[in-house]
Amino acid sequence: MKNLTIDPERLWDDLMQTAKFGATPKGGICRLTLTDTDREVRDWFKARAQALGCAVTVDDMGCMFARREGQRNDVPPIAMGSHLDTQPTGGKFDGTLGVHAALEALATLHRAGYETFAPIEVVNWTNEEGSRFTPALIASGVFAGVFTRDWACAREDRDGETFGGALEKIGYRGPERCGDHRLSAFFEVHIEQGPNLEADGKDIGVVTGVQAMRWYEVTVTGQDSHAGTTPMPRRHDALVGAARLVETVDAIARKAGTAVGTVGLLEVKPGSPNVIPGEIYFTIDLRDPDAAMLDRLEAEIQAAAKRVESELGLAIAIKNIWMQGATQFDAGCIAAVRAAAKVSGYSTRDMISGAGHDAAYVSRVAPASMIFVPCKDGISHNEAESSSKEQCAAGAQVLLQAVLDYDRQLAERYGK
Amino acid sequence: MKNLTIDPERLWDDLMQTAKFGATPKGGICRLTLTDTDREVRDWFKARAQALGCAVTVDDMGCMFARREGQRNDVPPIAMGSHLDTQPTGGKFDGTLGVHAALEALATLHRAGYETFAPIEVVNWTNEEGSRFTPALIASGVFAGVFTRDWACAREDRDGETFGGALEKIGYRGPERCGDHRLSAFFEVHIEQGPNLEADGKDIGVVTGVQAMRWYEVTVTGQDSHAGTTPMPRRHDALVGAARLVETVDAIARKAGTAVGTVGLLEVKPGSPNVIPGEIYFTIDLRDPDAAMLDRLEAEIQAAAKRVESELGLAIAIKNIWMQGATQFDAGCIAAVRAAAKVSGYSTRDMISGAGHDAAYVSRVAPASMIFVPCKDGISHNEAESSSKEQCAAGAQVLLQAVLDYDRQLAERYGK
Repeated sequence: MKNLTIDPERLWDDLMQTAKFGATPKGGICRLTLTDTDREVRDWFKARAQALGCAVTVDDMGCMFARREGQRNDVPPIAMGSHLDTQPTGGKFDGTLGVHAALEALATLHRAGYETFAPIEVVNWTNEEGSRFTPALIASGVFAGVFTRDWACAREDRDGETFGGALEKIGYRGPERCGDHRLSAFFEVHIEQGPNLEADGKDIGVVTGVQAMRWYEVTVTGQDSHAGTTPMPRRHDALVGAARLVETVDAIARKAGTAVGTVGLLEVKPGSPNVIPGEIYFTIDLRDPDAAMLDRLEAEIQAAAKRVESELGLAIAIKNIWMQGATQFDAGCIAAVRAAAKVSGYSTRDMISGAGHDAAYVSRVAPASMIFVPCKDGISHNEAESSSKEQCAAGAQVLLQAVLDYDRQLAERYGK
Repeated sequence: MKNLTIDPERLWDDLMQTAKFGATPKGGICRLTLTDTDREVRDWFKARAQALGCAVTVDDMGCMFARREGQRNDVPPIAMGSHLDTQPTGGKFDGTLGVHAALEALATLHRAGYETFAPIEVVNWTNEEGSRFTPALIASGVFAGVFTRDWACAREDRDGETFGGALEKIGYRGPERCGDHRLSAFFEVHIEQGPNLEADGKDIGVVTGVQAMRWYEVTVTGQDSHAGTTPMPRRHDALVGAARLVETVDAIARKAGTAVGTVGLLEVKPGSPNVIPGEIYFTIDLRDPDAAMLDRLEAEIQAAAKRVESELGLAIAIKNIWMQGATQFDAGCIAAVRAAAKVSGYSTRDMISGAGHDAAYVSRVAPASMIFVPCKDGISHNEAESSSKEQCAAGAQVLLQAVLDYDRQLAERYGK
C-alpha cells in the first residue's frame, strides 16, 4: 500500500476559510443550524466535494453525503464526518474539524488516485448542537431511529419557526429518506472539548464510548406583579424559585462527583426591571457515565422542585425532552483507530466522551467510533476554543489510516 | 359654582377604546414606549384633545401637553395626567387611567362651558415604565432637571436603539425644550397597584408621598464552556453566581420588613442548553420609605457579590443607574385632594406610594400630589390588573374637584 499523508496546510486553510461563514468579532463562529450562514457553509461543502469528484446527496433531515466510489459500489460506504453548525458563541473547531478532516482524507485519496474497496463518504449531520432546535443530534437521532422525522420536523426554535420549515427555507430538505442510507462504518474526528489529553500530554484520544445524558425543560409559574407595591410576603416570584433550582442542579452534580449538571438557557417573563417575574423557562443538561446516577439526580431535582413550589407558592413543570443512554463504540472501529494512531506515530489514551456526538447515535445502526484531538485548556463551546495546526493534522491522518484499515478488513470480509 | 360631574360611561368607553392599541390576548396591553403602538395611542390622544378645543404641544422628550385656555393665560396651567406607555404584559389601567381621567375632567369643563381662572392642561409623560429604556420616569426626570436630555436621549434599549432615535422614528420629538413648561400644580390619578385600599374598604387614597427607590444593573462574568466536558470543579458558571444574588436580594428585603427588592430582568449569554453560561446581565429594584435602609441593603448586596466572586471565580460589576429619594408631596395639593374626596362623598385614607410616578419628579419643580383608586387584589404590572367603572369614575371626579379647588385658590392668590 502507498504511504498516503494528508496535507496539514490545506486542512488548516480550509478550516480558516469556512470560519468566515458566521465569523464573530472575538474569533469564533455563530452558525446556528439552518440559518443563512449554515446554508452558505453547506453550499461551500457541496462545491468542494464535487470538485473532488464526489456526488453529493441530501436526505430529508438535511444531512449531506459526499460520495467517492470504490471498487465495489454495492458495499455500503465507509463514512466519516461530523457537523458544520455551531453554538451561538462557538469556536472554529467543534464539528467543523471533523468535516474538514474527512474532506482532507478524501482529497488525499483523490489526489493519489487511490482506489478503495468500498465507497468512501463524507457526512455533514444537521443540527448537532441543539442550540436553535432542541434537542441536540436531531438528524443523527432520526437516522438511528431514536426520533421520528415528524417529531423532529415539528421542533420549534424560540421564535416559533419549525425545524422542517427552516430546512425548506434554506433549500436543504433532500429527497432521500433519513435513515435509508446504510453505512459499513462511521468515523468521527473531534476536539476533546475537555482537559484530559492536554493534561496527559497525549496526541490522540481513542474514544471507546459516550456518557449517558438527559435534557429537561422546566417552566416555573408564579404571578407577575408590581415590584414597588407588592409586599414581600405576598409575592410568587418565579425567578426566585428558578434561582433555587439552578443552585440545586449545580450542588447535586458537584456532590455526585462523576456527574455534570448545567442550566444553560433561562428566559424571564415578562422581563422588566420593575415587574416581579411571573414565568421562567429553563433547560437542564445532566450527564454521567452511569445512567443510574442520572435517575438519582433527576429524583433529587424533582424533590427540590416540590419544596420550592410550596415555599414560594409556585407551579413547577419539569419535562424530560431527551434521554440518551451510555454508548459503547464498536470494538472493530476502536481497534482500527488505535492501530492507525500507532502506525502514524502518535501517542494515545482511551477515553469516554463527556460530550454527545452524532457518532453515538450512528453507532446504533452501524459500527462507529471517534478520534479525539486536544484543545487548549479544555475550552469549547466558546469563541476562544483552539487546537493547533499539528493537532488537527494528527486527527485527519489517523482518520485516513483508520478508514484505509477498515477498508482492507471489508475487502477481506467480502472476499475480494 | 355649578355642580360639575364627570361621565363614568364616557370615561370607561375611552379606557376600553384605547386598550386596543397593543391589546394582548389575555386582556392586557403591551404598549412599550416609543413603539408604533405608542404612536397610535398618542395620535388618538392628540385628536381627542383637539376635538375638545385644546391646542396640543410636544416637547423634545415627547411629552404631550393638551391645553384649555382659562381667564388668565399668563398664569402657568394647572396640569393633570399620567402616561400612556405600558409594561410588556401590562394592564388596562396603569397610567392610562390617569390620562383618561384627566381628559374626562377636561371634557366635563368643556361641555359645561365652565371657564377656569388658570389654563388647564392634560399631560402624557413619555416612558414612565422604563421597561424598554431604563430607568423609568425618564421624561419627567428631565422635566424636573434630575437627568440631562443628552443622557436621556442616549439611553439604549436591549436592541441598541436609542431613546432619541426612537422618538424621531415615531415623529414625537417636539420643538419645546422639556422643562421649560411651567406648571402651577400637577395632579395625577393612578390605580394603587397595591392591596391597601381594597383591604381597608376605602374609595380614594390621598397620596402624601412616594418611597425611595434605586435601580442597579449587574453583570456577572464567568467563562462559557461545554456543559458535557467541563468538570464541576473547573467551572465558572455565571448563572449559578447570578442565582445566588437573586436569592440574596429576595432574602434581605424580606428580612428588612418595610423594604421590597426585585430582580425583574435577567439575560443569559450565550444561552444554549449545553453551554455553561459565561455572562449574565440582570437588574435590581430596591425600595423603602427610608433611604438609609436602601444604603444598608445595597451594602449587603455588595458584600454578597464579593463572596460569590470568590466562591465561583467570577467577576461581578454592580452599577447604580437610578436613585430617587423619598418624595413628600405639596401640602396644598394634598389638602385639595382630601377636600375634593370629602365633597364628592368618598371615603379616604392617606398613603405613601410604593410605586414611582411622574408626579414624584414633577413635585420637585411644581406643587403636586396624587389620587389613588383601588385595584383588584392589589395586582398590577399584569394583564389581569383590574379596577371597576365606579372606582375609575371616583378617581376622575375627585381629580376634577381638586383642580377646581386649586383653581379657586390660584384666583385668590393672583387677586382675581
